[in-house]
Amino acid sequence: MPESIRVMVWNEARHEKTNPAARRVYPQGMHAALAAHLGADPGLSVRTATLDEPEHGLTEAVLAETDVLLWWGHLAHEEVADAVVDRVQRRVLDGMGLIALHSAHLSRIFRRLMGTSCMLRWREHGEKERLWVVDPAHPITRGIGAFIELPETEMYGEFFDVPEPEKLLFVSWFQGGDVFRSGAVWTRGKGRIFYFRPGHETFPQFHNPQVLRVIRNAVFWARFRGNPEVFASGDEVPPLEPLPERG
Amino acid sequence: MPESIRVMVWNEARHEKTNPAARRVYPQGMHAALAAHLGADPGLSVRTATLDEPEHGLTEAVLAETDVLLWWGHLAHEEVADAVVDRVQRRVLDGMGLIALHSAHLSRIFRRLMGTSCMLRWREHGEKERLWVVDPAHPITRGIGAFIELPETEMYGEFFDVPEPEKLLFVSWFQGGDVFRSGAVWTRGKGRIFYFRPGHETFPQFHNPQVLRVIRNAVFWARFRGNPEVFASGDEVPPLEPLPERG
Amino acid sequence: MPESIRVMVWNEARHEKTNPAARRVYPQGMHAALAAHLGADPGLSVRTATLDEPEHGLTEAVLAETDVLLWWGHLAHEEVADAVVDRVQRRVLDGMGLIALHSAHLSRIFRRLMGTSCMLRWREHGEKERLWVVDPAHPITRGIGAFIELPETEMYGEFFDVPEPEKLLFVSWFQGGDVFRSGAVWTRGKGRIFYFRPGHETFPQFHNPQVLRVIRNAVFWARFRGNPEVFASGDEVPPLEPLPERG
Amino acid sequence: MPESIRVMVWNEARHEKTNPAARRVYPQGMHAALAAHLGADPGLSVRTATLDEPEHGLTEAVLAETDVLLWWGHLAHEEVADAVVDRVQRRVLDGMGLIALHSAHLSRIFRRLMGTSCMLRWREHGEKERLWVVDPAHPITRGIGAFIELPETEMYGEFFDVPEPEKLLFVSWFQGGDVFRSGAVWTRGKGRIFYFRPGHETFPQFHNPQVLRVIRNAVFWARFRGNPEVFASGDEVPPLEPLPERG
Repeated sequence: MPESIRVMVWNEARHEKTNPAARRVYPQGMHAALAAHLGADPGLSVRTATLDEPEHGLTEAVLAETDVLLWWGHLAHEEVADAVVDRVQRRVLDGMGLIALHSAHLSRIFRRLMGTSCMLRWREHGEKERLWVVDPAHPITRGIGAFIELPETEMYGEFFDVPEPEKLLFVSWFQGGDVFRSGAVWTRGKGRIFYFRPGHETFPQFHNPQVLRVIRNAVFWARFRGNPEVFASGDEVPPLEPLPERG
Repeated sequence: MPESIRVMVWNEARHEKTNPAARRVYPQGMHAALAAHLGADPGLSVRTATLDEPEHGLTEAVLAETDVLLWWGHLAHEEVADAVVDRVQRRVLDGMGLIALHSAHLSRIFRRLMGTSCMLRWREHGEKERLWVVDPAHPITRGIGAFIELPETEMYGEFFDVPEPEKLLFVSWFQGGDVFRSGAVWTRGKGRIFYFRPGHETFPQFHNPQVLRVIRNAVFWARFRGNPEVFASGDEVPPLEPLPERG
Repeated sequence: MPESIRVMVWNEARHEKTNPAARRVYPQGMHAALAAHLGADPGLSVRTATLDEPEHGLTEAVLAETDVLLWWGHLAHEEVADAVVDRVQRRVLDGMGLIALHSAHLSRIFRRLMGTSCMLRWREHGEKERLWVVDPAHPITRGIGAFIELPETEMYGEFFDVPEPEKLLFVSWFQGGDVFRSGAVWTRGKGRIFYFRPGHETFPQFHNPQVLRVIRNAVFWARFRGNPEVFASGDEVPPLEPLPERG
Repeated sequence: MPESIRVMVWNEARHEKTNPAARRVYPQGMHAALAAHLGADPGLSVRTATLDEPEHGLTEAVLAETDVLLWWGHLAHEEVADAVVDRVQRRVLDGMGLIALHSAHLSRIFRRLMGTSCMLRWREHGEKERLWVVDPAHPITRGIGAFIELPETEMYGEFFDVPEPEKLLFVSWFQGGDVFRSGAVWTRGKGRIFYFRPGHETFPQFHNPQVLRVIRNAVFWARFRGNPEVFASGDEVPPLEPLPERG
C-alpha cells in the first residue's frame, strides 16, 4: 500500500478573525474546513498552519515533512516573511507540490514562482460562474462532469498576468460578461503547482463538493513522483569522456 | 487495490523472422522480451500482438480492453492498414496511452498523431550514447539516476521533425558528435503519448535495466486518469442561460 | 524594403452558391471579401482559390508561391482530395503559414496537422460573443483593445479537441453560458498555424474591423522567418567526430 | 521604414578590469564588443551600461527608452541592487525584451523571472561544443546552418533548473560527454526572454559570426509587437452585462 500523502493546509486566517460573515461560513477557519474534507481521505495525512503562528507554522522541519502545500491568503500577503518565502520556494523546487487557492494569486510565494505580477481584474458582486473543463485528459478534472457551476462568486477576469500554463484545465464564464483561466498547472524545478480560482472567504465554495473534488484531485496529482537523484546543482564536474590537455 | 493496467505490446516482428542477429538477441521477438519484463510487475496485465496477425491483432475488442499500447515497427510501416491506424488513433484520443519505441517514430500511427513528418538523421555504427535526464520532475525519469549510458547504439540525430514536446525528458549525447531529443511526451485528445529512442532490433537495449525501467514508468504514467464525462463531441447543444428570441 | 508576403485565400465557396443569405453578406464570396481587405495592405500580395477549381486551385506551383494560406470550409470538407491535403501539409511543414478560420476546425488539413478530432459543441442562435485577449504579448492581438464583441454569432463551445495550444490568444464568452478557446497557435515542422473562431457564412464577421485586424496580424505573424538550411531529413549521415572501428 | 530598435547592452564588466586574459579578448569590455557588432545594423540603436555606474546605468529613464536589454554578469550578481532588479522585472513584464547571455543564468533578474534556481553543472576545460538547431521554425535560428561549432568552451551541463522552455532552440553537445539546452525562450508578462549559453569572458565567442548572428536575431525577435492596450491590472471593474441586484 502506498504511503499516505502529507498535506499542509496553510491559511492566512485573518478574515475569519475580523469578519463575522467569514466566521459564519468557516467557524474554524478555511484551513479547518479544507483539512476536514481532505482528512477524510485515507490516503491523505493532513495538518494546518496559519500566518500568526511562529514562522507562520512553516519551519524547515514542517516543510521537510510536507508533500503538498495548500495556500490561502488575501489581506496580509506582505506580512509573510522573506525567510519563509525563500524556504517554501526551495522546497517546491525540490519537489513539494503547491496548490494556490483564489486570492493566493497575489501571495508572495506564487508570484515568486511565476516571475510575473499575477495581477487580474475583479468584481465582488456575487454573480454566477461556470468553470468549464477544457482538458479532460488531466487527472485534476476527474469526477466533476463538464463544468462546475457556482451560483454566487467573485469575478476574476483576464488579463491574468501569469506565464502561459503548461496545461490549462478550467476556463470560467461569468454572468457579467468576463472570462478567466481559472485552473492551470506549472512546474518549477521538481515541484508541481496548481492554481484554482474558487475559494472566497464568504462565498461558501470550500463546502462545494465539486470544488473539493478538484482540490483533492490536485493533492494526489501534485505529490512528487519524479527522479530524486537528479537535482539543481552548481557543481563543477569532471568529464565523462577523455579530453585532450588544454594548450 | 487499484486494478491492473492492461498493456498491449505491438511489434511488427519482421526482423526477428529474417535476421539471425535479431533472433539471437530476441529469440521470441522484441514483443516477447518486453512483455516478459513488464509482465513481472504485479500491477500490469500484458498481452502481445504482431503485424501478421489478422487485423494486426488490434481489433476493436482488443483495443477496447487496452489501457496502454506499446508500438515497435521499422520495415513495414506502410503495411499497417488504414482501418487499424484510424482505430488506434480513435482509442488514443479516447484515452489509451501510446508508447512509441525507437523506429516507431516513422510509424503511421505516430505520424498521424503528431501531424509532422517525424523524420530524423541517423547512423548505424554502434557508437556510444548517453541519455541525460533533463526533467527530473517527471515520473518517467524515476529510478535511473542522471543518465543512461548505452555502449553501442544507432545514432538518431536532430533535426527531429515533431511538434515541440509538452515535456522533454531525455536528451542524447552521441559519440559521433550529434544530439537528439530522445524522450518526450505529448497529449492528443485524452491520450498520453511517450516517444523513446532506445530499442534497435540487434543492439540489445530491451534487455537494459534502465531502459526497461523507463518503459515501465511510462506505462504507469500513460494510463488514463482523466475525466471520462467530457469527450470530443460534434453535438448541437441548447443554451445554459436564457437567450432572447432571434430577430 | 521587405518583399511582400504572398497570401492565398482559399474558400470552399459553396454556401455562397446556394444560400441567398450568404450571397447577400458576401456577394463575391468570403474569399473575395477577405482578399479585398488584405489586398489593401501594401505589404501583402493576395490571390484566391476555391474548391471547385481544378486541384482546388492549389497546385504544387501555386503552393510554392504561397507564404501564408487562409482556409475556410464547412459543407464539403470530405471533397478535398487526398493529394491536395498531402501537398498542403508538406508545404506547411516546409514553412508555409496556415490560418484556419471558423468551421475550418473540421477541415481535413487542420485535422491532419493537429492529429486530433478537432470536434467541438455548437449552437446557431445568433447570440452575443466576446473574444477576450488573454495573451497581450502576442503580435496577433495587437490593435484591438481588450476584447472583440460580436453582437450575433454562432456559439462554438468546449471541449474543443485540439492539442494544448503553444499560445492561447483569445477566450470567448458566449451569452448562452459557454466558453471557447477561440484563438490559438501551433507550430508543425517549420510552419506556423493560427486557428480563429469568427467567420460564419451569414453573420458578417469578415466585415468586422477588429476581426479583420486579427486576420491581417496573423498573416504577418505566420510568414516563415526561420532557418531554411535545416529541414526534415531521413538521411544517413557520417559522424562529425572520429569513431572507433566497430568490432 | 520601421523605427530602429533601442538596444541596451548591460555588462557587469569586472573580469575585464582584473583579468588580463579577458582584457586581451575584449579590450573595451564585452559590452563594447557586442555593441560594436549590433550597432553595425542600421535597424538597431545601441547603448551600453555597466554595474559600477550609478544605479548600474539602468535608471527608470534609461529603461523606458530600451526595447531590448542584453545582460552579462558572473562575479557580482549579488551586487545588483534590489531596486534595479525590481525595475528591470517591471519593464520586462511591460514588454521589454531580455537576452541573458552565458553566466547570466544566475543573474538576479533571470532567476527572478524564471522562479527557479537556474543552477547547472559546469567545467572549464576548453573542450569542443556543438550547438545544434532543434527548432528551424524559429527566427532566432536563421542564418547559421545546422549547428554552431565552438572549438574551446566552458561546459554547461544538465540538469539546468529552468521552467520548461516555451521553445527549445539549441541543444549543445560537449566533447566531455555532456549535453545542455543552450538556447531557449520564455515569455513573462508582455516581455520575451532568450537565454543563450555562449559568451565566456576569455573564450572569444562574442567575436564568432554565428554566435553574433544568433544574438542579433534575438534582438529583432525580442522587441515588443504585442497589444499595449491590455496590461496587468489590479482594477475592480464593472460588469459588461446586466447583473441582478445581490440579495
